[in-house]
Amino acid sequence: MLRVVVVGLGPIGIGAARAVLADPGMELVGLVDIDPSKVGKNVTELEGGPVVSKSLKEGAAGGADVAIVTTTSKLDRMAPTLREALALGLHVVSSCEEMAWPKYRHPELAGQLDAEAKRAGKALLGTGVNPGFVMDLLPVVLSSMVLTASRVRVLRQLDASTRRRPLQQKVGATMTREQFAGLKAKNEIGHQGLAESVAMIAAALGREAKGGSIEVTLDPVMAERDIPSAMGVIKPGQVCGMHNVGRWSDAALSIELDLTMAVGLNGSKDAVEIDGPVPLKLEIPGGTPGDTATVAALVNCARALPRARAGLLTMLDVGACGARAAG
Amino acid sequence: MLRVVVVGLGPIGIGAARAVLADPGMELVGLVDIDPSKVGKNVTELEGGPVVSKSLKEGAAGGADVAIVTTTSKLDRMAPTLREALALGLHVVSSCEEMAWPKYRHPELAGQLDAEAKRAGKALLGTGVNPGFVMDLLPVVLSSMVLTASRVRVLRQLDASTRRRPLQQKVGATMTREQFAGLKAKNEIGHQGLAESVAMIAAALGREAKGGSIEVTLDPVMAERDIPSAMGVIKPGQVCGMHNVGRWSDAALSIELDLTMAVGLNGSKDAVEIDGPVPLKLEIPGGTPGDTATVAALVNCARALPRARAGLLTMLDVGACGARAAG
Repeated sequence: MLRVVVVGLGPIGIGAARAVLADPGMELVGLVDIDPSKVGKNVTELEGGPVVSKSLKEGAAGGADVAIVTTTSKLDRMAPTLREALALGLHVVSSCEEMAWPKYRHPELAGQLDAEAKRAGKALLGTGVNPGFVMDLLPVVLSSMVLTASRVRVLRQLDASTRRRPLQQKVGATMTREQFAGLKAKNEIGHQGLAESVAMIAAALGREAKGGSIEVTLDPVMAERDIPSAMGVIKPGQVCGMHNVGRWSDAALSIELDLTMAVGLNGSKDAVEIDGPVPLKLEIPGGTPGDTATVAALVNCARALPRARAGLLTMLDVGACGARAAG
Repeated sequence: MLRVVVVGLGPIGIGAARAVLADPGMELVGLVDIDPSKVGKNVTELEGGPVVSKSLKEGAAGGADVAIVTTTSKLDRMAPTLREALALGLHVVSSCEEMAWPKYRHPELAGQLDAEAKRAGKALLGTGVNPGFVMDLLPVVLSSMVLTASRVRVLRQLDASTRRRPLQQKVGATMTREQFAGLKAKNEIGHQGLAESVAMIAAALGREAKGGSIEVTLDPVMAERDIPSAMGVIKPGQVCGMHNVGRWSDAALSIELDLTMAVGLNGSKDAVEIDGPVPLKLEIPGGTPGDTATVAALVNCARALPRARAGLLTMLDVGACGARAAG
């Protein structure tokens, strides 16, 4: 029985906790959130789960094996939690986007955490649907079927029409072009983790994309017709979503990750294209579903961590983490 | 520099040796084949390569790190080569189909080899396009994006029209129904490794498909019109290919791998379908190319073995083995 504590009770954390409760091989031993209004109470969505603790130490006090952490996108903000988890003897799996390829933005901190995790004999892993799968692990796994690749391109098109309101807001729907530009200038809009995905692909193919070498562009997608949304009708000339592209290349290899998340796209899809002497294509019609997939990645990887090697790992290091059979 | 010796000089072995020669991070230190007509000579397709040795011991005499072995589909026939490789201090990656999930047919031998590899501190791995990727690793990796799966189905349709003559012969093209049945009765026709792929998926999803529990069916595909082939026109009523299906299920999970390899199919494709609360589909339009993909799997995995753990491994154990960047 794998004893799991979930840290961070936003939608992804609650989804992960619910999945742990439903898993006959796992036990939900603790819930942790810093929000004082949650501490000491039960979570309505998690019937039968423990009350919320205010710290990992308290949440894991009864004994735990793995912490699932969904508190921040930034590795430096994650570091204290990672260190506390190691001190408590826990493996950690997290949706922290920068942790998907930690050494791109934080080479020194990543090196320290790797050494600390090895000393503690525990594994620390960043995962999720993106980064963690669609735009990095999946193209790398596909590339194993060719000897050499000159270009890796991933196209992810996510129609936010059917998604929850916070996602529609997150991609900028109903904003003016100026509002979008203002948030962009403050680095408060745009997908997190695109550069990490590019860096992971480069590494898997034997290259190193050093800090700052990856170009990431962000543009609004403008509505050209009335588009219904959770916040009301998006008018022509208003923003309906965002278009993020990450690029890296050298003389022989180019990597391009092209992500559009917008309300009113004509459906969702993921596509991987590998160019080289033997080209290869892969498609996920309808796309990989975002929120449920990140929850699944966290829980499926949590199951795999006890047999992984110690250290600050990436999805390139762990073996294939399958789903659980129904029943 | 990874020093590689290639054992077994059929088309896949020669392809792998050529890829090693072309890889700036690898050195082709030895070639091994038991065919007396090859021993002591150069291989015309491998300009600059070593002469062929008659044993692994001689082929690796100058020092080697990894053996790529393409000699047999059967684990018991592979075992002496694996043991010799361990004694010589080599990792092994092989296209041996039974080695893709060795404990399905040979639980005792697999346990012995695993223990011996661990004692030697070396990794032994079976890989390839199928088994090794399309019908096992790929669906498992995809399944990580859902919490639970009730059904995994893989459809691989391989149009042999554009493939080399030996493959067209292998799938039965131009045979009569009786000839096909005769070979089937002697177990001399049909895809190798389908049960291994089923067993790997079951294991990744937390189930065990015990020896003999997997049903594998094999039927000829009959031509319904004149179909050109490398052996001349296939007439209506003659065999144009084969249809292999592997199945396993319990009360909550069913696995079905459906493989058609025939001359005159309307194109090739691979498709993975995962059923459950969140269904997920993946397609490889045009299909994963067979021979080049197995060569790529061998060489890309060879590169990864020195950092893998010791033991008799499967594709579920090793991390993602990407292609090499061009250049």
